[in-house]
Order: sequence, then C-alpha cells, then structure tokens
Amino acid sequence: VKSCGNVWRAVRELHPIVHCITNYVTANDCANLLLGCGASPIMADAVEEAEEITTLSASLVLNIGTLNGDTIAAMFRAGAKAAELHHPVVLDPVGAGASALRTETALKLLHEVHPCILRCNISEWKMLAHTGSVSRGVDAADIDRVTPENIGEMGTLLRRFAVEHGCVTAVSGEIDLIAAPDGRLAAIRNGDAMMSGVTGSGCMLSAWCAACAAAEPQDLFHALCAAHCAMGIAGEIARRGLLPGEGNASFRNRMIDAFGSCGKEDWEARCRCELLS
Amino acid sequence: VKSCGNVWRAVRELHPIVHCITNYVTANDCANLLLGCGASPIMADAVEEAEEITTLSASLVLNIGTLNGDTIAAMFRAGAKAAELHHPVVLDPVGAGASALRTETALKLLHEVHPCILRCNISEWKMLAHTGSVSRGVDAADIDRVTPENIGEMGTLLRRFAVEHGCVTAVSGEIDLIAAPDGRLAAIRNGDAMMSGVTGSGCMLSAWCAACAAAEPQDLFHALCAAHCAMGIAGEIARRGLLPGEGNASFRNRMIDAFGSCGKEDWEARCRCELLS
Amino acid sequence: VKSCGNVWRAVRELHPIVHCITNYVTANDCANLLLGCGASPIMADAVEEAEEITTLSASLVLNIGTLNGDTIAAMFRAGAKAAELHHPVVLDPVGAGASALRTETALKLLHEVHPCILRCNISEWKMLAHTGSVSRGVDAADIDRVTPENIGEMGTLLRRFAVEHGCVTAVSGEIDLIAAPDGRLAAIRNGDAMMSGVTGSGCMLSAWCAACAAAEPQDLFHALCAAHCAMGIAGEIARRGLLPGEGNASFRNRMIDAFGSCGKEDWEARCRCELLS
Repeated sequence: VKSCGNVWRAVRELHPIVHCITNYVTANDCANLLLGCGASPIMADAVEEAEEITTLSASLVLNIGTLNGDTIAAMFRAGAKAAELHHPVVLDPVGAGASALRTETALKLLHEVHPCILRCNISEWKMLAHTGSVSRGVDAADIDRVTPENIGEMGTLLRRFAVEHGCVTAVSGEIDLIAAPDGRLAAIRNGDAMMSGVTGSGCMLSAWCAACAAAEPQDLFHALCAAHCAMGIAGEIARRGLLPGEGNASFRNRMIDAFGSCGKEDWEARCRCELLS
Repeated sequence: VKSCGNVWRAVRELHPIVHCITNYVTANDCANLLLGCGASPIMADAVEEAEEITTLSASLVLNIGTLNGDTIAAMFRAGAKAAELHHPVVLDPVGAGASALRTETALKLLHEVHPCILRCNISEWKMLAHTGSVSRGVDAADIDRVTPENIGEMGTLLRRFAVEHGCVTAVSGEIDLIAAPDGRLAAIRNGDAMMSGVTGSGCMLSAWCAACAAAEPQDLFHALCAAHCAMGIAGEIARRGLLPGEGNASFRNRMIDAFGSCGKEDWEARCRCELLS
Repeated sequence: VKSCGNVWRAVRELHPIVHCITNYVTANDCANLLLGCGASPIMADAVEEAEEITTLSASLVLNIGTLNGDTIAAMFRAGAKAAELHHPVVLDPVGAGASALRTETALKLLHEVHPCILRCNISEWKMLAHTGSVSRGVDAADIDRVTPENIGEMGTLLRRFAVEHGCVTAVSGEIDLIAAPDGRLAAIRNGDAMMSGVTGSGCMLSAWCAACAAAEPQDLFHALCAAHCAMGIAGEIARRGLLPGEGNASFRNRMIDAFGSCGKEDWEARCRCELLS
C-alpha cells in the first residue's frame, strides 16, 4: 500500500461529489467530515431524485442506520443507477442482526446492488456472512472482536467472503481487516479506543471510504486501506489533542477537524497498514 | 436519595442498550450523551423493527419532537412490547400544546402505553394535566415557571398526577420537580441557565433518564432524581469550563463531555437534591 | 442600512418563534444558532400540524435540503397559512438544479407560496431564474461565482428577479448580493472562506434571516442585509478564534457561539455592507 497521503490528496484535488443515503443521526457529521476532506456531500434519500443525484455524483453510500420504506426504495434505485454508471458503492449495514428489517435489507442490497465495498463492524459482518453472532444493537459485540489470536482465522473468512461476493470487505474495530476479491488482505492498526464512544464513527468512515473510492477507483483495496488508516490517524490526533475535561463530543469535533487541518506528511508518517498476503 | 454517582456508575457497568424513537433534530446529541455515559443507544423508528429493537434493548424513549405517521405507529408498537417485557419507558412530550397532533399523541401514549416515566418541561406537563398553559412552541412559557413561591402548590399537583397516572413524573426547569406514584417528591437545584439555550437539553435528559432507569429499575424515582442531578451537574461543569467567546454550541459539547470525563466523586459532591416529602 | 446590531438586538428582545421545515442534516445547527440569537426554533415538518405551528410562530423557513412527499405537503400548507397571517417566509432552495424534484418543488413554492424572501447560493438562484447554470450538488459551481468583474451584471439580473417575483432575493457567496422588489441592491463583504467548508452554513443563514425578518418585518431588505452581515461576521470571529489543529467542526461551533457571545458593538464595527443603488 503506497500511501494514504496520496489518496487523501487526490480527494482534495478531485472534490468528488458523494451521494449519501444515510441515517439522520449522523448525517451532519458525515457531511462535515466529507467537506473537511475536500469532498462535496449530497444527502438525498428521496426515491424520486435518487437516480439523478447518483448520476451527478462520483460515488454512493448506502447506510441503513435509520431505515424506512422510502429510503429503502431510494437505495435500490440509486444502487442500480450507480452500477450502470460504474460508480463505487459503499454499503454500511448498520445494526444488521438487530432486526429482520436491517438484516434482510442489508442482504438484499448486497445481493442485488452488488456494492463494490462493504464496510461494517465485525458483528454486522458475521450476520451477513451467516457465521453466527449476537447483536449488541448498532455496536460490535465483545465476543466478536478481532484479536492477535484470531486474526489469521478471521482474515481467511473475510477473504473468502470478499472473493465470493466480489467486493472489497472492510471490518473495522481495534484492528481493521480489509480483504479484496483478488485475495489481498490487510490489517490496519491505527485508531483510538475513544472512536467507539462517538456515534457515527463508522458512518463517517463509510462516507470517507466513498470519497476515497471516487478518487482512486482503479484500486479500491488500496483506497480502502488508505481510508481506514486516515480515519484511525484522525482518531489518534483527536485523542492527543484532547484537553482535560474533554470527552466524546470534543473528540468527535477534533476527529473531523483533523481531516481538514493535517497535511499529507501527517498521514504518511503515522500509517500502520500491514499486508497479510 | 443516596447517590447520583451510584446510578452513573451502574450505567457505566451495565452498558444498557437504550431504544430511542426520537426526533431527528437532537438524535446525534442524545446518542453521544448515552455513549459518553457508557450506555449503548440505538435510534430506530421504523415500525417494522420497533418490537425487535425494543426486545434487545433495556429501556425505551418515546420523544415526539418531530412526529410523523410512521414514527407514531412505531412508538405504540415499541411501547406495547416494552410493557410486555417490563422495560422502563420514558415519554418526552416535546411541544405538547403546540399542535393537536403533539398534544393528542402525547395523551394517547400516556393513556395507552402507560410509560413509567414522564419527563418534560412545565408547560408541556400543564398541557397534559389540563391545568391550563400557553404554548411557546417547544420551550417552556415564562409564566409557567416553578419558583420558590409556587413550588409547594406545584409539588402537590405533580404528586397528584404521578399517583393518578402511576408514573414517575419529572418536570425540569430552573428547579426540577420529580414526583413518584408512591407520594415521594423531590426538588433538584442543579443546572445552569445556559441549558435552556441549547437545543436538545431536554431530549438528552430524557435519553439519560432511560439509561438510569435501565440501571436502577427497582427504584425509578431514585433513578430519576439521580439522572436530573447528573444532568444539571454536567451543565454546571460545562458552564464553569466555558472560555471567553464560547457560546451555546461549545456549551453543548462540554455538557456531553462531562458525562464521560467526570468521576463518581464529581457527581456526589455537587448533588443538590432535596426530598420534599 | 443603519445597523446589523439593531436587528441582532431586536431578535434578542422579541424572542421570535421560527417555524423551520428544514432538512435533517443541519436541523440541529439551525436550532442552536437560533437559540444562540435569542430566537425560539420549532422544527416541525408533519403536514398535520403545519398550520398550527405556523400560526404560533412569527416566521417560517422552507428549506428543501432533504425533501420527501410529506414534508413537501407540509411546506405548502405552512406557506399558505403564513401568507394568510402575513408572516415572513424564507425559501431556501437547497440543491435546486441537482434534481427535477428539487428544481420543481422550489419553483412551485416560489410561484404558489410567494415567499417574501429567497435565500440561496448563486447556482441555485440561476437555476430558478432560468439563466443557465451547472449543478455541483448542493454547493455553488465555481463558474457561477460573483466577482468584482461581474457584480454589476449580476446585480442587474438579481434586481430584475426581485422586482418580478416581489421578493427580497439574497444570493450568498464570497460577496453576498441582496436585491429588494423596490430596486434597492446591496453587496455584503463579510464572511470567511471556511464557511463553505461547513455543512449548513446556508441553512443556518436562512434560519437566521427568518428570525431577523420576524424582528424587522417592516423592512425586509434591511433585515436581510443585517442578517447577512452578522452571519459573515460570525464567520470572521470563528476564523480568528481558531486554534492550531482546529478545522471545520470547531469552526462551526465557534460560528454558532459567536451569535450568543458577541455584543451589539461587535456587529456594528465589522459590518461591510455597501448599497449599490
């Protein structure tokens, strides 16, 4: 993986428009993170405009954090149009496993829209991969964690899934694992524990992945590795900058801030991405 | 009331999942406050998944800040399931009195879901208690204020309401009043005037009450007193930390931050809760 | 234009209730900005309550950032009621041009609701004025920019539009242009480049314009000039206060903070409003 700084710079130079059909809880944070990166977010979940908005955008995020009938329809319409135009699509199956609506919608999107990128936490991925999991709502369950002990086994399962579904599959947590349909596999060790204490850490990462994919469509695995490194580094920078008395709200602001205020060198120097195969 | 620190610690230890059917204006703040407290929020307002999400959660918030037909249906479904499972339910009748839709939905939820906790401002409560009020939209009207002069009379009315409806009734303002169905009554004098200048102060308090109720279901009155003290203390800490030039946006961040950064002793030392009977 | 400080003070004294039918992405920021100004926001987009909420409010914002069938219906109902009550209505046609749904809804609102204020970016305005533009989603396209070179021509077109549609028309960007139906035209040179890097800068400005219009209904052109100056000044203050490492999330907080923490003199001293005719 050459450089997360290069991908970060490409986003700043290309200003990709990112169509986000996403939940209302974290839409503001996703929009500000994309703007901080130099991308141009457009949050549009009306089915009537789904195809037009996708057409004028460079990539698409389908985030099922707060679903309803209308937004589900918009996701399928936008997804079909993105496929037709060969725009990168990121699926974020928030809370898959927490309800049949979420699990089934996520699986249907996976099988019918064929997103080229799946980004989620480990519990959500296990649900979609039918490998068995328990649901902790929208958070990963502790017993599902990727650890130094099970990383080999998890990597194998993840790679199999990526090959089978033809999509770059990124599972984030203390260690992020990213698998490509061509068999590549990487582990990212950037990040900070406070990220799981902020709502929308995952949603922001998905939106940012879509921006990176738009900037580097010829190698989505590389784009995703860079995106995960940068997000983790932003978390590290946020943590380091935290003043006494500050907690998760300030951490969130500092994490978004990092995307706009760091330079290419900051990203390069801190990148902890290991190719596992 | 023994200790708001104990309740705060219980939330951190139990990590209760809190199902929030809430408005899109302040959902992000509610989620971050719950995460800062160690709880696990799940914002889910689709009727199709209401029962499942309630089932995997420990408590439920019904906040009518931005209603529509779908979310109203989800509230009744989730409320019925929570009753069946004996999960604590917090009703926050945002803007009751501002429209028939809000007033009627709030009354219907009160009478059909039988939430064990009602949390609102004084104008909203007066609307539901039919004691007459004027609407200032979602804010309390000045003439409705609880003051040292009318606190005796207000307490009597509130206690009567709590007994009649069998729900712990908490009315927040400069002085918070909390009444239990068993006749207990408390006044909380924590808080800061800037809290009313932040959107979602009340919504966050309701979400936090649901987390406390999940952690202390055997004594909801105690849980609610602790929740109100802690919220007020967070406001005091936020105010004290405010730098020159900072206003309500920074105050909001600092208030959420306080929940994650303060220790048990901070909550104990500042608690200003008086049992009135 | 006498003073943006006077308008700012009038809002603080009158506490106008502002009915916002707005997008879920930036609703929280709009609410906090209005509260910081001393206004009282009510976000209510259910069609069933649209007329009642408009009736108890002093002004109305119609922001089409995230449209759906229900909120469109609510906009027309609320708009008709506001017209009947002579309440100022601000139309913010977010993303007009990005989809037929947005363009057509904005034009229909313009022609049927007859808002007394249109506030948007230059690309959105060109779309509505049929003068030709390209869409960059919800952001202004670079080639549409108001510059010292084209300001004369743009002013003429804008004035013609304001006269024809009988509404104060404000187009914001590096230079804001504001035209009145009576032929007055002003250029505002307050603001900071970081404002375009924050989601909801425009939405917040529209909400704030509605508060100013409620406080100064007898001269909406004056109210709008003051509103634009103050917003730009808040951006300047936010930029000046930015610490090393801070980016757009902190900038957003500081911009909202400014409305609550600055005094009348701050607004007066920095106002850069030029009457062009």
